[in-house]
Amino acid sequence: MQPDAPTGAPLTPAIVFENLNAFQRTFALKAAIELDVFRAVGQGPGDVASIARYAKASERGIRILCDFLVINGLLQKVDGHYRHTPSSAAFLDPNSPHCLSSIVGFLSLPELRQPYEHLAEIVRTGKTVLPGEGTVEPENPVWVEFAQSMAPMMAPLAGPLGALVLEGRQGPMRILDIAAGHGLFGIEIAKQNPQAHVTGLDWLPVLRVALDNAKKAGVQDRYDMLPGSAFGVDFGGPYDSVLLTNFLHHFDPETCVGLLKKVRSSLKTGGCVATLEFVPNEDRVSPPMPAAFSMTMLTSTASGDAYTFRELSDMHTQAGFIGVTSHPIPMSPHTVVMART
Amino acid sequence: MQPDAPTGAPLTPAIVFENLNAFQRTFALKAAIELDVFRAVGQGPGDVASIARYAKASERGIRILCDFLVINGLLQKVDGHYRHTPSSAAFLDPNSPHCLSSIVGFLSLPELRQPYEHLAEIVRTGKTVLPGEGTVEPENPVWVEFAQSMAPMMAPLAGPLGALVLEGRQGPMRILDIAAGHGLFGIEIAKQNPQAHVTGLDWLPVLRVALDNAKKAGVQDRYDMLPGSAFGVDFGGPYDSVLLTNFLHHFDPETCVGLLKKVRSSLKTGGCVATLEFVPNEDRVSPPMPAAFSMTMLTSTASGDAYTFRELSDMHTQAGFIGVTSHPIPMSPHTVVMART
Repeated sequence: MQPDAPTGAPLTPAIVFENLNAFQRTFALKAAIELDVFRAVGQGPGDVASIARYAKASERGIRILCDFLVINGLLQKVDGHYRHTPSSAAFLDPNSPHCLSSIVGFLSLPELRQPYEHLAEIVRTGKTVLPGEGTVEPENPVWVEFAQSMAPMMAPLAGPLGALVLEGRQGPMRILDIAAGHGLFGIEIAKQNPQAHVTGLDWLPVLRVALDNAKKAGVQDRYDMLPGSAFGVDFGGPYDSVLLTNFLHHFDPETCVGLLKKVRSSLKTGGCVATLEFVPNEDRVSPPMPAAFSMTMLTSTASGDAYTFRELSDMHTQAGFIGVTSHPIPMSPHTVVMART
Repeated sequence: MQPDAPTGAPLTPAIVFENLNAFQRTFALKAAIELDVFRAVGQGPGDVASIARYAKASERGIRILCDFLVINGLLQKVDGHYRHTPSSAAFLDPNSPHCLSSIVGFLSLPELRQPYEHLAEIVRTGKTVLPGEGTVEPENPVWVEFAQSMAPMMAPLAGPLGALVLEGRQGPMRILDIAAGHGLFGIEIAKQNPQAHVTGLDWLPVLRVALDNAKKAGVQDRYDMLPGSAFGVDFGGPYDSVLLTNFLHHFDPETCVGLLKKVRSSLKTGGCVATLEFVPNEDRVSPPMPAAFSMTMLTSTASGDAYTFRELSDMHTQAGFIGVTSHPIPMSPHTVVMART
């Protein structure tokens, strides 16, 4: 993200200040979303006065906030007027179908933010300062917020994941969606295959969000709820496919292997598991987004991580799966790992 | 800092996540400084186990923290070992004479951090949520922390500023250093000219830090303390030069003009004022560091700003100064504005 100065170029302490003040960028984007600045920029003339009127805010505040967004690549400034960048038009203007601004709700949760106040202690002990297993404690309400606010980030992944799981197959099939959350991955398969039957597994308050989404997609008559912990409930089955999305990263490898064994025993012969993950390269420092995700796991769990493909492949193999393959999803930080019984 | 995707390139939401999670970078660098990771990298073999031993921390925590620093350009990773970048060797290793890590003490102060939790409200009202004038309230203890922890950042500016003020002149002269803080700017002039006499003006607890620095530099017999507010105390004089460093940005233009008038009346005929500031270009969005500084003024003051050279020039002219010139300091985000009576 921040390349160092080329060899021989004069050294400046800029990178130190940028990192120490980086927290300002988080709060600036959050404030701009709260004040609906991106909608104002998209539909108005883009001068300070009109944005301030729309946001019911001071001109001084809006001018400094919008300049700050420009500095950080989240708006453009042309002849003193603020304009969308291609990215802000697509992902931050509420009038865009791809708008992601709701994700600020999940990413700003105190449970995800406050551990950073104790990061040195977390690094010393190697695990979150949150109680027990952190965000994966039973019935943790953060997952209701996740299901509600992260759906727009996950929606673009559902099509590619569904295509990998179905491989064009139609006809009756049963799908288990573990840690269903918003439910969008299972729902997408029900949409792509009108004879697919989906079972969503998650805490009950989370599943209610998934069921709402199933209703919106018109597939609720093929959507069952299996409330509880993935480690506790009987999966039932046998299933043609099991979806394991954004889940393994919360646990240590041994726990992941145990869960994958349970998944495998719930699958039909020839059935497949589809694991959606942040998968860094083996160097663990690239690409930036999947690699940086391990910091979120350090601060919010007892033993989670962003696993490399080699590690995920080993876990699947130890659980008895074969044919483990990696499928990075274009234009996203996510990868689908596929394996068969 | 974050260029948008080139026209025609596929859009990704990466920039949205980077900004929403940017706060992690602040805390990661702070934790690495607290755990003395940069010293460990500079003097050890650079593997996870040895850094963890040095930092008395878990290997899991150190590995994830150091990878995160690599992702953000603050370390390198070569064959699984962590190495300094040129910047981290110069500015973050405590064994370097240019080490800046003490600045985390000032930049992490609750008075500077907590207003961001209320940034939408600040933008609405156009001023800090801190009481009164914010960080420039009388006797605010943040300036003792500033004087103590920001000195390494300011030290490299003292030589260039001193040279601009002295222009090679020797012989008896009197200097007033307003908002002296650490005192390094006045002390530098006393070092460059053995007949210069410096008067440091600041709150008394801050001036004690300046006097300590004057003693370390061996110029304490030519260093006087003038405790109080720049707006309240009689400056005395007449002075050959007045230093006005990192000060005007806290106030609105009218207040700045009033202060500059008072400065001018304390100067000898032909005397000069040297104003050190973050000075963005007239577009107010470049260069990144001086332009971004207006956000710090929005959140921590009632009406401060990062003023452009045109604005600073106007203030000086309105106060009766002539010959206003701009002198950006190389390899720093600061500019010295010089003017004569």
